[in-house]
Amino acid sequence: MHWPTGLSRSWISLAIGGAFAVGALACSGGKSAPRGGAQSALLEAMKARKLSEADVQAALKTYTPTGRMDEYLTFASGGHSGQVIVIGVPSMRILKYIGVFTPEPWQGYGFDEQTKGVLAGGRRAGHDITWADTHHPALSETAGDYDGQYLFIGDKANPRLAVIDLADFTTKQIVTTELIGSDHGAAFVTPNTDYIVETTQYPVPFGGGYADPAKEYKEKYRGAAVFWKFDRKKGRIDPAASFAVEFPPYTQDLADAGKLVSDGYAFFNSINTELAWGGNQEGQPSMESSYSKSDMDYLHIVNWKKAEELVAAGKAETIAGMKVLRLEVSAAEGVLTFVPEPKSPHGVDVSPDGEDIVVGGKLDTHGTVYSIAKIKALIAAGKFESKDPYGVPVLPFKEAIRGQVELGLGPLHTQFDNQGNAYTSLFLETVVAKWSLKDLKVLDKLPTHYNIGHLVAAEGDTVSPDGGYLIAMNKWALDRFNKVGPLLPQNFQLVDLSKPKMSLLYDMPIPLGEPHYAQMIKADKLKPVDVYKPGEDPITGEKSPEMVEANKERVERKADGVHVYMTAVRSHFTPDIIRVKEGDTVKLHIDNIEQAYDATHGFAINSYNINISIEPGEHSDVTFVADKAGVFPMYCTEFCSALHLEMAGYLLVEPK
Amino acid sequence: MHWPTGLSRSWISLAIGGAFAVGALACSGGKSAPRGGAQSALLEAMKARKLSEADVQAALKTYTPTGRMDEYLTFASGGHSGQVIVIGVPSMRILKYIGVFTPEPWQGYGFDEQTKGVLAGGRRAGHDITWADTHHPALSETAGDYDGQYLFIGDKANPRLAVIDLADFTTKQIVTTELIGSDHGAAFVTPNTDYIVETTQYPVPFGGGYADPAKEYKEKYRGAAVFWKFDRKKGRIDPAASFAVEFPPYTQDLADAGKLVSDGYAFFNSINTELAWGGNQEGQPSMESSYSKSDMDYLHIVNWKKAEELVAAGKAETIAGMKVLRLEVSAAEGVLTFVPEPKSPHGVDVSPDGEDIVVGGKLDTHGTVYSIAKIKALIAAGKFESKDPYGVPVLPFKEAIRGQVELGLGPLHTQFDNQGNAYTSLFLETVVAKWSLKDLKVLDKLPTHYNIGHLVAAEGDTVSPDGGYLIAMNKWALDRFNKVGPLLPQNFQLVDLSKPKMSLLYDMPIPLGEPHYAQMIKADKLKPVDVYKPGEDPITGEKSPEMVEANKERVERKADGVHVYMTAVRSHFTPDIIRVKEGDTVKLHIDNIEQAYDATHGFAINSYNINISIEPGEHSDVTFVADKAGVFPMYCTEFCSALHLEMAGYLLVEPK
Repeated sequence: MHWPTGLSRSWISLAIGGAFAVGALACSGGKSAPRGGAQSALLEAMKARKLSEADVQAALKTYTPTGRMDEYLTFASGGHSGQVIVIGVPSMRILKYIGVFTPEPWQGYGFDEQTKGVLAGGRRAGHDITWADTHHPALSETAGDYDGQYLFIGDKANPRLAVIDLADFTTKQIVTTELIGSDHGAAFVTPNTDYIVETTQYPVPFGGGYADPAKEYKEKYRGAAVFWKFDRKKGRIDPAASFAVEFPPYTQDLADAGKLVSDGYAFFNSINTELAWGGNQEGQPSMESSYSKSDMDYLHIVNWKKAEELVAAGKAETIAGMKVLRLEVSAAEGVLTFVPEPKSPHGVDVSPDGEDIVVGGKLDTHGTVYSIAKIKALIAAGKFESKDPYGVPVLPFKEAIRGQVELGLGPLHTQFDNQGNAYTSLFLETVVAKWSLKDLKVLDKLPTHYNIGHLVAAEGDTVSPDGGYLIAMNKWALDRFNKVGPLLPQNFQLVDLSKPKMSLLYDMPIPLGEPHYAQMIKADKLKPVDVYKPGEDPITGEKSPEMVEANKERVERKADGVHVYMTAVRSHFTPDIIRVKEGDTVKLHIDNIEQAYDATHGFAINSYNINISIEPGEHSDVTFVADKAGVFPMYCTEFCSALHLEMAGYLLVEPK
Repeated sequence: MHWPTGLSRSWISLAIGGAFAVGALACSGGKSAPRGGAQSALLEAMKARKLSEADVQAALKTYTPTGRMDEYLTFASGGHSGQVIVIGVPSMRILKYIGVFTPEPWQGYGFDEQTKGVLAGGRRAGHDITWADTHHPALSETAGDYDGQYLFIGDKANPRLAVIDLADFTTKQIVTTELIGSDHGAAFVTPNTDYIVETTQYPVPFGGGYADPAKEYKEKYRGAAVFWKFDRKKGRIDPAASFAVEFPPYTQDLADAGKLVSDGYAFFNSINTELAWGGNQEGQPSMESSYSKSDMDYLHIVNWKKAEELVAAGKAETIAGMKVLRLEVSAAEGVLTFVPEPKSPHGVDVSPDGEDIVVGGKLDTHGTVYSIAKIKALIAAGKFESKDPYGVPVLPFKEAIRGQVELGLGPLHTQFDNQGNAYTSLFLETVVAKWSLKDLKVLDKLPTHYNIGHLVAAEGDTVSPDGGYLIAMNKWALDRFNKVGPLLPQNFQLVDLSKPKMSLLYDMPIPLGEPHYAQMIKADKLKPVDVYKPGEDPITGEKSPEMVEANKERVERKADGVHVYMTAVRSHFTPDIIRVKEGDTVKLHIDNIEQAYDATHGFAINSYNINISIEPGEHSDVTFVADKAGVFPMYCTEFCSALHLEMAGYLLVEPK
C-alpha cells in the first residue's frame, strides 16, 4: 500500500479508521472490523489528490461551502490595473474588482455621464488618464478603527486620490493637484478620517513647470504631504479645505498616521537624502546606486494638528491652487522634524497602541522601533542634533528609538496582531518574520513564494488588530501555478496566525493587477445596500432630475439634442426603437425600474461604444452624437431572464 | 456537546476517533483511550467552521496545496468586460484575465503601438470601441479535439472576433466586417480549425446602411454566418480567404459545428421566424412577446464544405468587402436547409460522436435530438415538407429527429461526458439535468444557485469528453457570497461528475465580467512560453527592427520624431533621463533585456497616460506627443526587485 507523502501516523490511522482496527484487533483476535464508507472516501480523496495532514488542515480552514459568508473582506490595490480587488477571507475568493481609475465596461464605469464625470476629476496635464498605479488602500476609521464606510486609494503615477463608497462599492470621486508629480505614501487616514494623506514619491518642480534637475534639483524640486480634508457627511474630499506640507526633495516613501498617544502626528520615510535624480547617460549613476549611498535617511515627523492650526491662521501660501505650509514655516513652527533612519527604509507602521513607530530597513537588516514618547520629549526639550540643509531640525537617532530588532534581509512592512506581536515582510529573505513588539525578538519565520512585498493582517494596522489571518502579498509566483505565459499572476498566501508558529493555508493567484498594499476588515462591519432607491443617480446619491418612471417613457427633441427617456425591466426597454437623424446629439436617460436584488440590466448600442450597467433602481445618462447613419442593435448585456436575448431594440440613424 | 449539522454518524466517529473509543471501550471496560492530536485538530477545524461530511469531501477534492498545478484550465468569456478569464480546475482559482477587446493597463494592453494596432482592427462605424460583449470562447481543434494552441472569442455587440495565442496568452488579432451588425453564435470552430464561425444575432440591413424595419425588415434585414478562414501557420485569420452565408432575418442564436459523421455541416438556431423587430412605442409588442409567438423556429443546417466549393467556384457576391453566398444560391445548391425546432430554442450542441444535434428548447420543456444520419438521408432524398418565405427548403421535423427528452423548465445548453451522458442547463428550473444520450432519459438533477446559463464539462464539447468536472455558470448569486453592493458577482459552481449522482464541490464568485460560455481543457495540452525571445515583438512574433540591445541605448532625433532606444533591467532604465522639447513627437523603443522567468518590468510616464508591461525579452514601442512642458517622473510599475522604487527617471519637456 502506497501512502501519500507527508501523512503522519496518527492521520493515516484516522483516515482509514486504523485506530479502530487496531483497537478492535486488540480484542477481536486479529479480525479486522469493516470500515465506514465515509472513512474510505476521505482516504481516497487524500490519496487521489496527494494531500498531506497539513494540507487537509489548511483545506478545512479555508474551504467555504455554498452560501457561507467569509469572515473578513480584504481590499487590495490592483497596482497598475487602476482598480481595487475585494477578496473574501479565509476562502480567498475574489468577490469584486472595483473600477477606480480605469474605465471598466462590466461595471459600465467610464461609459455613462455619471462615471465619466468621476474620471474627469483625474485629468492631469491636459490629458485623460485611463489607468493608474493604485498602491495603498485606506479604509475610513473612527477612533483608529475601521468603520466600514469608505475606502480611499492613491494613484502613484499621476498622482491622484479616489474615494470609494462602501455603501455600493463604487468610486464617487477622484481628486488631484498639480502641486506634485507622483505619490507613494497614499492613501492613509488620520484616526477619525479627518484627512486622507497623499505623499509624494519622485520630486518635481513644486507646483509644476520645468527645471533641469542637473542644475536645480536641490533648489526647485520638492516633495509634499497633501492632507486632503474629508467631509464624511458628504462622503467627499473637500479640496478647498485641504492643505499640503512642503518637504525637501528626499524622495519620500511610505507613511502612516499616529494613533492614540501619537494621534496628531504623521510619519513619512524618505530614501534619497542624497538628492540623486538619475542621469545614467549624463555621467551620473542610476538611482538604484545613487539613492543608497548614505547610511541614513530621514524619518519625517509631521505634527499635522499644528499644521492645521497654522493653515487656519493664514500661514499657508497658495501654490497650484493648494494651500501649502512652506518648509521655512514648518521647520520654524515645529510642524516638521526629522530623525535619522537606516539606509533607504521602506515601510513605516505605527503600533496599535500608538507608542511605537516601526521602520523597515530595506537595505538594513533591522526593524527600527521609534518611541513617540521619546520623540515628543526630545522635541519639547528642543534636543536637536543638527539641522538638515533645508533648515529642518534633526533629532538624535539613538535617543529617539526604543530599540532595533534584527529581522533579516530586506525588511519592508509591518503589521500587528492582538497578542503583542508584529509581522514584518522580508523581501530579500522572502519570509514573514513574527516578532515580539515588547521584547524586540524574532519568534518565528515563515517562507513565502516568492519575494514578499506588503503583508496584511486582520485589522492589522488599527488600534485593535484581530490576529487570526495574515496575507503575504508576494511579487513573484514562478512555479506556484499553471503557466499562463510570460506575464505571471502575483501570489497571495494566506497564513494562519492562530498558533505560536505561523502556517501556510492557501496560495491565491491574482489574475489581474499587481497589488501593493491591502487592508482586511471584519466583514460584518460592512453594510452595503442591495439596490438603489428608485431613480437614484449613484454619484450624487439623489433622485436624478431626469428620472424616468414606468409609463412615462418618451422621446423629446430639445435645443440640446434628442432626449430619450427610457426604462429597463425584465425583459424589455421602452422605447425599444430610437429614431434619430444623422448628426443628432442624443441624450439617453435610462432607469432600471426594478427593485429586486441582483436584477441588473446592461444597455449597449452596437458600434457606438455605448455600454452601461444599470443596477436595480439606478438612473444613468448617456450622451453621444449619432455621427454614423445606419441601423444599430441595442440590447441588454446582462443575462437577466429567460427572455434576456429578446431584451433588445434598434437605434435607427436616418441619413441626412 | 453540539454537533455541526450534516455530520453523519460515521464521520463523527471518524472525526473524534470515536470508533477507536467505541472499540477500545468495548474491551477496556469503559476507559476512554487518548485521542491523537491530529484527530482532535481535524475535529476542531470541522466544528469551528461548521463543515459537514459533504463539505469536507468537497474541500479535499478542490483544495490545491502550494505549488500544486491544476488539472484543467477553463477559458471563460468575461461578458461585457471584453476580456477572457482563465480558471484552474479543480481549485477554481482565477489565473489570469486576458485583455481582448478592452484596454487593460496591468498588461499594458492598448497602451503601446503593438497592442493599439490589435485594437484598431476592431474599429466599427468610424468609432474606437473600448469594450466588447465577449460571449463564446472556442479553443482551436485538431480532428475535433482541443489542441491547446489558440483561443478565439466573439464580441456580440460590435461584432468582432479575436485571436488569442496560447503560447503567450495574449490577443494577436481582432477582425470585424461591416456586413453584419451583431453576432451571437461566435466563436466556434470547424473540427480542424479551418474556419472560425461568427453568426449574427440581431439582423440589420445587409452590409450596412439604413432601412426602416417597420417598412423593410423582411426585404432588407439579414443574418449571416461568417466563416473566417484561419491560417494556422501564421496564427491569424485571413479575411480575404473568408466568406459568409446569408440567412433570413430570423435572429439566429447559438451554433455549433458538426464533427466526425457530421463534419462539413454547421448548425444554427433561430428564435424569430416571426420577423419581429420591436417597436413597443410604435404599436408593436416588445420582442420578448413577439419573438415567441410561433411554436416552431428553424434550425439552420449549413453544408459549409459545399459553401466553400461554391465560393471557390465564384458563386459568391462581394458585399461590404466580404464574399457572400446569397440566399438564392445557398437554397438552390443545398448549402442551406431548415428543419423546424421547438419554440425559441437557445443552445445547439453536437454530440461527441457527431451523430446527434441537441437543441435546448428554452420555452419548451424538451431537449430535441436531431440525427445527422436522418438529416443527410432526407436531404439526399429531397424530402422537404415546404420552403420558407425565402425559398429555403424545410425538412420534416418528425423524420429528422431521433427523439426528444423531457428535461424540465428552460433547457439551454448541453455538454457531454465520457460515459455517454449529456448535461443540460435548465435556466428556469435552475438545475443541471444529467441524461442518457442513448436512452433519452433523465438520470439526475442538481440544483444550482441561481439561474444557470451555460455549463461546461471537461473537454465537454469535443470528440472525446473527459467527464470528471462540470461548471455551472450561474447568472445570479443572491445570497451565496458576502454582499458587495447592487452589482453582484456571477456564481460558477464546480460539480463532481465522477459518480452517478452529481454533487456540488465549490462556489466561485466571478469578480469582474459576466461569463457566458467557457471551455475546459486538460492543462497539460498547454505549453506556453516562459519568456519572449530577445527583442521579440509579441504581435509579430519576430525580432523587432527597433530592438534595443544592452550598451546600445541612445537617443536619435529623426524627421519623424525623437527616437529613444531604451533598455530595462533590474533595476534601471537606460537612459533614465529623456530630454525633449515641447511639441516633439517622441518614439520610445524599449526592450526588457532580461531572460529570467517572471522578471517583468513596467514602464510609465506620469500624467502622459503612458503605461506598458514589458515581459522578459519583450520589445515594445510607444509613441506620443510631448504637448505639455514640465518634469514628468517615469518609473517601473512592476515590483521587480528590492530596488524597484529606484527604477525611475524623468521625462524633461523643455518649454518652447
